[in-house]
Amino acid sequence: MSIPTTSMKISAEEHRQRCEKLLMHLHVQGLNGVVLSDPQYILYYTGFAFIPTERPILFVMNKRGDRALFVPRLEKEHAESNALIDRVDFYIEYPYTPHPMAAFQTMLDELDVKAPVGTDEDGYPWIFGYRGPRLSEMLGAPYTNIRAFIEDALMIKSAAEIRLLREACVWANLAHTLLQRCTKVGLTETEVSQRASDEATRVMLDTIGPIYRGQSPYYGGAIAGYRGQIGRNAAIPHALANNLTFQAGDVLVTGAAAPVWGYHSELERTMVIGRATDQQKFLFEHMLALQTLAINALEPGKPCAEIDKEVRAYYEHHDLMQFWKHHVGHAIGLRYHEAPFLDVGDLTELQPGMVFTVEPGLYAPGIGGFRHSDTVLITADGVEVLTYYPRDLESLTLPV
Amino acid sequence: MSIPTTSMKISAEEHRQRCEKLLMHLHVQGLNGVVLSDPQYILYYTGFAFIPTERPILFVMNKRGDRALFVPRLEKEHAESNALIDRVDFYIEYPYTPHPMAAFQTMLDELDVKAPVGTDEDGYPWIFGYRGPRLSEMLGAPYTNIRAFIEDALMIKSAAEIRLLREACVWANLAHTLLQRCTKVGLTETEVSQRASDEATRVMLDTIGPIYRGQSPYYGGAIAGYRGQIGRNAAIPHALANNLTFQAGDVLVTGAAAPVWGYHSELERTMVIGRATDQQKFLFEHMLALQTLAINALEPGKPCAEIDKEVRAYYEHHDLMQFWKHHVGHAIGLRYHEAPFLDVGDLTELQPGMVFTVEPGLYAPGIGGFRHSDTVLITADGVEVLTYYPRDLESLTLPV
Repeated sequence: MSIPTTSMKISAEEHRQRCEKLLMHLHVQGLNGVVLSDPQYILYYTGFAFIPTERPILFVMNKRGDRALFVPRLEKEHAESNALIDRVDFYIEYPYTPHPMAAFQTMLDELDVKAPVGTDEDGYPWIFGYRGPRLSEMLGAPYTNIRAFIEDALMIKSAAEIRLLREACVWANLAHTLLQRCTKVGLTETEVSQRASDEATRVMLDTIGPIYRGQSPYYGGAIAGYRGQIGRNAAIPHALANNLTFQAGDVLVTGAAAPVWGYHSELERTMVIGRATDQQKFLFEHMLALQTLAINALEPGKPCAEIDKEVRAYYEHHDLMQFWKHHVGHAIGLRYHEAPFLDVGDLTELQPGMVFTVEPGLYAPGIGGFRHSDTVLITADGVEVLTYYPRDLESLTLPV
Repeated sequence: MSIPTTSMKISAEEHRQRCEKLLMHLHVQGLNGVVLSDPQYILYYTGFAFIPTERPILFVMNKRGDRALFVPRLEKEHAESNALIDRVDFYIEYPYTPHPMAAFQTMLDELDVKAPVGTDEDGYPWIFGYRGPRLSEMLGAPYTNIRAFIEDALMIKSAAEIRLLREACVWANLAHTLLQRCTKVGLTETEVSQRASDEATRVMLDTIGPIYRGQSPYYGGAIAGYRGQIGRNAAIPHALANNLTFQAGDVLVTGAAAPVWGYHSELERTMVIGRATDQQKFLFEHMLALQTLAINALEPGKPCAEIDKEVRAYYEHHDLMQFWKHHVGHAIGLRYHEAPFLDVGDLTELQPGMVFTVEPGLYAPGIGGFRHSDTVLITADGVEVLTYYPRDLESLTLPV
């Protein structure tokens, strides 16, 4: 006889609740159904994670709440064994003949889904060479874009989602610990990053493996590295990796993450190889003060813009705007960057259950970049920083 | 004094030619300009590789052929140092206030870009929580989607692109060699995949490092693994990795790749641990015959559909349709799946310079999946298989 084993997976009940909220939105908007193609949205509403290709995969719900997936033959068993769904229809292949959209039209007819319909895109996106009718052509009417509603739903994380985000922070912490331990003058970023990422991934799989899935489009496991943000290059925030060799005096900006059932955390630290120079120390300490200020400024009820304004005031007061390059942070979850943003232009109100990165930075050409990033949960009465790696210069100074 | 060193990077001259063809298309279509947001398209036309986030990055060309990039402050230096472009405009931050699209409107006005305009998307995509005006709202007119034209341009690879694809095959071959060598009963797919991928990446960086960039949204370096296609799971073509342990008798479907300056190769092999059973051998040999047939069927002038039809005839003649799941292959290049497709529904004519994966498969529940994939170039008088890993059962049988 089987026993009720633990699981990390978002429950069928929670997926059902998400779909019910979507259904209510359809009713309120007077829509006859919804068609979604975004892989993260499909994961959010059905639990089905897949590798997107040229072959259309679409989620449909009609106004009665019947949920269906439209998949290629290739994904039929995979969809059936994973997706919490009332109906899986498959087509033979794409582009094929007749075109898969003919079968999709039949499915829409059977589900009684006709204009007006809500969708995230005018049919399957073009990115992998899709050619065929657009959804608006099939429905004979323009569609209603409901991305804003879905993005709003994604913003507030449930208890189960927060649990996965916490778990994602734990393994990012291990990856970062190993990264710091392995980083040494003369080694390359590639070998150090591989060593830390591999060991963290193996330990994570050995530890939570049987109940673990990554389900991330971005990372195959735990990861820690430098993305080229080493020494003078650290002044370019989104540099791409370039296999640099560590040198004494380098300022390093790290990044560590671990996807857990599709959810992502973010942990970044500024480290220095050898004792920091006065210039480095000056920028590091201001960066730390900026992050502390930003985290403590977060509280439910405030608009996102307010946090960025308070942080900008610090930059301005200390004459640091020459080193400023970007807003305070972004929401995080199924995507590594999500709305809303801790930005002067985002008036979204902070609410319990929102999860943000907090990462104000200072970038000085010829010296380096200075940025910590932590993953922070808005709670009923303030915040909880879910990542817990040391933030002070002493802890982040590497021996030469 | 500097000397003329070798380079792998697509030349400025080639980027210029690509833009000129795009400009001719604008003239023919009577468009006043083009606005592109797809990161691969921007890489194709400018050589600028970047990490997409919520911050809009847009490429604009007006009807005089002036090329411009619109980037956030964060990417300004990065864009200026990488992109072959006449003008880089930056905005402070997104969403910010005023909204970046206000500055973009100014840029469009200065470049005299007004409707009708060609684009790949109605403004910046929503995927990272973008909210703001659509391009059609800014232009006060519907846009013309020119993705089909761009996808057509991507289809025919130049000599420089073919060189990069060849290089991508070389390092995929190393990764696959190491994968096969490391795979042993009792080890997990994760540790074997890490070992092979890491060593291949390190050797690749040590070998071509100074003139190498990956520039891939999919892979950080050379990679080889199983993606969960092990034993009985191998019957699910696009399974996601699950850290399985190798057992005697397993049928394995591998995948190896290495991105080189944004270009991707594909190399997949079916391997068996221990002597193949008669059933396994039956399916393996038919798979091999199918792939041989498909490769030899490729020649310029034939429609893509014809290849898939000839292959399907073999399945039908040998009563194998119960094991069939997908078409013969897809084009490959800046994306790992591109149009056109070797599929009965794709009437595109094969032309010299097209590069395809050739990968007919057989999938038998309870036994496993059987698929090789090679990267194949269409030449003036036939084909050249760019990947060169052994294909026969003997070579792909692992000792127990």
